[in-house]
Amino acid sequence: MLEGSCIFMPVSEKKRYKRRPRSVNADELKIIPLGGMGEIGKNITVFQYGDDMIVVDCGLKFPEEDMLGVDFVIPDTHYLLENKDKIRAIFITHGHEDHIGALPFVLPRLDVPLYCSRLTAGLIDNKMLDANTSYVPYYKEISPDVKVKAGCFTVEFIPVCHSIPDSLALAIHTPLGTIVHTGDFKLDPTPIDGVCTDFSAFAELGKAGVLLMMSDSTNIERPGVTPSEKTVGQTFERLFRLYKDKRIIIATFASNLHRAQQVINTAGRFNRKVVLIGRSMIANTDLAESLKYIDIPENMIITPQEAENLPSNRVVVLTTGSQGEPFSGLVMMSRGTHKMIKLGNRDLVIISATPIPGNEKLVSHTVNRLFACGCEVVYERDEKIHVSGHASRDELTMMLSMVKPKFFVPVHGEYRHLVRHAQLARDIGVSQKNVFILQNGDVLKFKNKNKAEFGERVQAGAVLIDGVALGGLESSVLRERRELSENGLVVLSLTVDQTYHLISPIQIKTKGSVFSAEDTDAFRELEKAAKNALAQFARTPGAREDALPTEIRRRIRDVFGRSSKNYPTIVPLITKVDF
Amino acid sequence: MLEGSCIFMPVSEKKRYKRRPRSVNADELKIIPLGGMGEIGKNITVFQYGDDMIVVDCGLKFPEEDMLGVDFVIPDTHYLLENKDKIRAIFITHGHEDHIGALPFVLPRLDVPLYCSRLTAGLIDNKMLDANTSYVPYYKEISPDVKVKAGCFTVEFIPVCHSIPDSLALAIHTPLGTIVHTGDFKLDPTPIDGVCTDFSAFAELGKAGVLLMMSDSTNIERPGVTPSEKTVGQTFERLFRLYKDKRIIIATFASNLHRAQQVINTAGRFNRKVVLIGRSMIANTDLAESLKYIDIPENMIITPQEAENLPSNRVVVLTTGSQGEPFSGLVMMSRGTHKMIKLGNRDLVIISATPIPGNEKLVSHTVNRLFACGCEVVYERDEKIHVSGHASRDELTMMLSMVKPKFFVPVHGEYRHLVRHAQLARDIGVSQKNVFILQNGDVLKFKNKNKAEFGERVQAGAVLIDGVALGGLESSVLRERRELSENGLVVLSLTVDQTYHLISPIQIKTKGSVFSAEDTDAFRELEKAAKNALAQFARTPGAREDALPTEIRRRIRDVFGRSSKNYPTIVPLITKVDF
Repeated sequence: MLEGSCIFMPVSEKKRYKRRPRSVNADELKIIPLGGMGEIGKNITVFQYGDDMIVVDCGLKFPEEDMLGVDFVIPDTHYLLENKDKIRAIFITHGHEDHIGALPFVLPRLDVPLYCSRLTAGLIDNKMLDANTSYVPYYKEISPDVKVKAGCFTVEFIPVCHSIPDSLALAIHTPLGTIVHTGDFKLDPTPIDGVCTDFSAFAELGKAGVLLMMSDSTNIERPGVTPSEKTVGQTFERLFRLYKDKRIIIATFASNLHRAQQVINTAGRFNRKVVLIGRSMIANTDLAESLKYIDIPENMIITPQEAENLPSNRVVVLTTGSQGEPFSGLVMMSRGTHKMIKLGNRDLVIISATPIPGNEKLVSHTVNRLFACGCEVVYERDEKIHVSGHASRDELTMMLSMVKPKFFVPVHGEYRHLVRHAQLARDIGVSQKNVFILQNGDVLKFKNKNKAEFGERVQAGAVLIDGVALGGLESSVLRERRELSENGLVVLSLTVDQTYHLISPIQIKTKGSVFSAEDTDAFRELEKAAKNALAQFARTPGAREDALPTEIRRRIRDVFGRSSKNYPTIVPLITKVDF
Repeated sequence: MLEGSCIFMPVSEKKRYKRRPRSVNADELKIIPLGGMGEIGKNITVFQYGDDMIVVDCGLKFPEEDMLGVDFVIPDTHYLLENKDKIRAIFITHGHEDHIGALPFVLPRLDVPLYCSRLTAGLIDNKMLDANTSYVPYYKEISPDVKVKAGCFTVEFIPVCHSIPDSLALAIHTPLGTIVHTGDFKLDPTPIDGVCTDFSAFAELGKAGVLLMMSDSTNIERPGVTPSEKTVGQTFERLFRLYKDKRIIIATFASNLHRAQQVINTAGRFNRKVVLIGRSMIANTDLAESLKYIDIPENMIITPQEAENLPSNRVVVLTTGSQGEPFSGLVMMSRGTHKMIKLGNRDLVIISATPIPGNEKLVSHTVNRLFACGCEVVYERDEKIHVSGHASRDELTMMLSMVKPKFFVPVHGEYRHLVRHAQLARDIGVSQKNVFILQNGDVLKFKNKNKAEFGERVQAGAVLIDGVALGGLESSVLRERRELSENGLVVLSLTVDQTYHLISPIQIKTKGSVFSAEDTDAFRELEKAAKNALAQFARTPGAREDALPTEIRRRIRDVFGRSSKNYPTIVPLITKVDF
C-alpha cells in the first residue's frame, strides 16, 4: 500500500492541488530511502514535509550475477512519479554512477530543477548524451557559499573529500530540525586539490544541534583511517624511479581525477608524456580540464601515434580497465586486441584500484593475461597503489562525534554495514531508540523533534535495464533466462490434421543443449517421445488441447533424464491444419 | 599434435606392445601437467620415463561464471587413455576435491592401482559412491614408512601439514634423479594432530641432491608465514568466552577436520554439545572418527532434536555453507528455510573460512541475511577466524632453501602465482635457465641431469560436466547458452503450402525475452515481420530454401532493434505441407 495521495497529477492541475487544505499529517517529517539501503549503489532518498519533497541523489547499481542480460539497475521511482508535483528539487552530492546514473531515466519524467556542483553537472551532461535522451536538465549550480530554499527546506552544502572532486555533504534545515546527509566522504587531511572535508562546518552544525545524521557506511568494516590520496602519489614516485627504463601503463577509475592528476604530475617530474586510453578516461579528463578541476601542462598529453616516436621510458599510458571490464583499454591490451597499445616485456602495468566486490575474477584474469604478455605487474593491495574514497571506522567515529546527532540512520551500505554503523553510533552515545536501520521503501516519520517511528512503507525496488530501452524486466523473464542458461532449449514443431495425425515430419531444434543435431540417436529418441505423446493424446477421447504440450514435455524430459538429472526448457509448437 | 605413440591400445595387445624395442626417446624423463597450471584446481601431472608413466593427483575445478549450467570441470585425460598401458599407478597427495574430484570419471577408464593414505582412500570411496559409479578402486595404502616401486620410478612419501589430515608430499626417484612434488602444504609448527611437515626428510633429500622440485604456489602473493591452525582455536576460545550466553553456529569446510576437532575441543571445555549439519560435514566427521583421525568424546555429538531440549548456550552447531553455497546448511539457515535450525538474536554465527575467489558475493549475501535474522556474525578477516592451508612466501622460500633443487617448476596456481614463484626460485639461487613455467599440456623433457627443454605438447584441456553425465560440452553449446541467457528466445513456427503461402496462423513463443505474449502490439509486429519475410521469399524466383529462415531472422532482429540494441536468439521453424 502507498501512503498519502497516490493519484497521478497532470501538470495542469497543479494549482488546484496546491490550494487544497493540508492533510492532517502535514507537519510530519518523513525520510524515505528509495535506494541505497542494504546495497551498494542506486542511492536515492526522499525528504518530505507536508506537501514539499526534495530528493537527494539518483544513482544506478550494476547487476548481480543472476540478473542475466541486465545492463544495470535503477531504483523504482513510482513514488516520485505519483508525487511529482510535490518535488521541489533534486540535489546531487557528487558525480559517481551510484549517485547520478539513474538520472537519464528518471529526470525527464519528473522535470524538476537539479542542484549540483559544476563538475557534477558536466558529468551528468555526458551521461545524458550517452543515454541518447534529448531532455536538457535545468541545472542550478551549488557550492558551499550558497543556500537553497526548496519548499519548506533550506539546504546548505559542505565540501567533503571523496574519490572525485567537487563532492558535497548536505545540511537540510527542516521545520523540525537539521538533517546532515554526509554523501560519500573521507577525512583526507592532504587532498590533491586542497579541498579538505570542512570539519568546522560539521562541528558548527553539531554545536547548533542536529536532529538526524545520515552517514556513509561503505567502509565501516575497515579499522582505522583511510589513507590519504597523496600516499598513492608517493607510490607512483617510487615505482617510476624503480622502473625508469620501462614504459608505464596505469589503469584506474576514469572518474578519479585526483588520481589522474597525480599520474600527470609524476609523469612531468620524470620527463614522461601521457597517453590517455579509454572513452570515459578521455571524456572525463577533457571535461575536468575545461572546468579547471585538473591541471595539465601544455603538450603533456600526446596521442598513441606520437608516443610511438618516443622511447618507451618517456611514456605513461593512463587507461580504463582497472575492474577488468571486458571492453576496456587495459583488458583489450591484455588480450593483445588493443589497436594502439601492444604490451610486452618492456612494460610495467600498475593497477591503481582494488576490485569492486563481484569483479575479483575479472581483475584476476586480467592480471594473469598481463603476466602472460611478459609485463611486470603491480597490483597487490600491500603496494599502497590505491586508497578508498570512503571513510573508515575511526573517521566515521569522528564524524559522529563532531555532528552529535540526536537520531542516526546509516546509509550507503549492505545490511551488515548498516548494522555495524548503527552499533557504532550507539557506542558513541546516540540513544538506542534513536538509531534506525532503514530498508528501501521504509518511511521514517518524525511527528516532533523527540520521536521517530516507522510509517507505512512506499513502493520501492529495482528496475532492471536491458539494452537502452527503459523497462522493468519481470522476474519471470529472468527465471526463464536462468533456465535457458543452465540447460539450453529444445523446440519441437508438430504439424497435425484435425485428428492429430502428423502430416509432416516433426521438426526438432536444440540450442545450448547437451544433445545437438549431430547426435542422431538422441534426436531419434526425442522424435519417438514426441510421437508417442501424440499417439497417446489422439487415443484419449475428450482430452483437453493443452494436455498435448504437457505430455510432450513430460516425455522429452524423460529422454533427458536417462543421461542426466537436468533437462532443458522444452517448447512444443503444435499446428493443426484444416485439410 | 600428440607426442609419441597415440594409438589406442586394447588390453589384449599389451604384451606385444611391451616387447617392442624401446624408441629412441626412451631414456627421456618427461614432466607433463594435464591440469593445475595457470589455474587453481584440477591438479594432475604425468611423470614419464620410457614406457613407464605415473600420475600424481586427479582433481576437479569449479566452473567459471561464464560456464553456464556446468557443474564442474575435470581435466582432459585423452593422453592418459591413449597411453593407459604405460600407466603404472596413480598417486594421490591428499583428499581435497582439486586433487581427487576427477577420479570417479577417470579411474574406471584407466583401471590402474591407486596409491593414497588411509583417510584419502575413505574420502575417495565416498566420492565414488556419490558419483554412482560401480567401479571399485584398487587401493594401495601408503605412508611415510613405505616406498613404492612403479615401473622405473620409486616413490617415497613425506608427511606435510595442510588443511586436511594425512597429506603427503612425494619424492619420486627417477633414473635421472629425484623429483620432489610438495603437494599442498604449509609449515605449521603446531598442527592439531601433531603431524608436522617433515623438515628433515626434505632437508635430507636436498642434501642428497634433488633434480627437480615442483611446489605449491597458491599463497605466493601472501607475505610472511601462514599462521598456525592453533590460532583459530584461540579465537574460538575467546569467542566462546565472550558469547557465553548465546548459541554458537560455526560454518567451515567439511574437509577441514582439524577445524572440526578444535570446535569439538572448545565445545567440551565450555560444556557445550555439538550438532552437525550438512551432508558432507556429517559424512566426513563419521569417516574421520571411524578411521581415528578425529577424537570425539562420547555423547559429544547430539541430534538437532536433542539440542532443542538443551539451553541454547549449551549448544554449538557445526555446519557447511562457509562459501555461501546455495543449498548448504548455513545458507538455508540464513534464508529461514532450514528445517531444524532457526536463527535469531540469541545466536552467534562464526564463519570460519575466507571466500574462495568467485564466492565473495555469495558469502557477502549470506552475511547480510544472517544480520537480518538478528544474529551476531563474526566473519571479518582480521578476527583470526580462519587460516589458510597453504604456505605463504616465507615458507615457500624456506622449502626452496631446504630442498635446493637444480630445476624448479611452480605448480598449483594461476599464471601470476607461477610467475611470482618462479621469480622467488631465481632469487633463492636456482639458475635462471632451470626455472620453467609450464602450461597444461606442456612437456618438459630431461635428456640428462643437466638440461631440460620443452618437447612437443600433448592434448590437454577442460572437460565440462553438466549433470551426472560424463561428457565434454562443446564450446558452441556454452556460446548458445550465453546468448539465450542474455536476451532470451523467440520461436516462430510457419506452416506453408508448396508455394510458400501460410495455411495456418504463425505461432510465436518467447522465453526470457523483453517481449512476452502479453505485449500484443509487439507480437503483432513480430508476426508482420515474419509474414513480410515469407512474402518476399515467395516473390523471389529461384531463392534457396535456407534463405527464408535467414530473412525471417533479419526482420525479427529489426523489430527488436527499434526498442533495444539487443535481440534474442531467433528460431524459425518452417513446415512445408504437401496439400
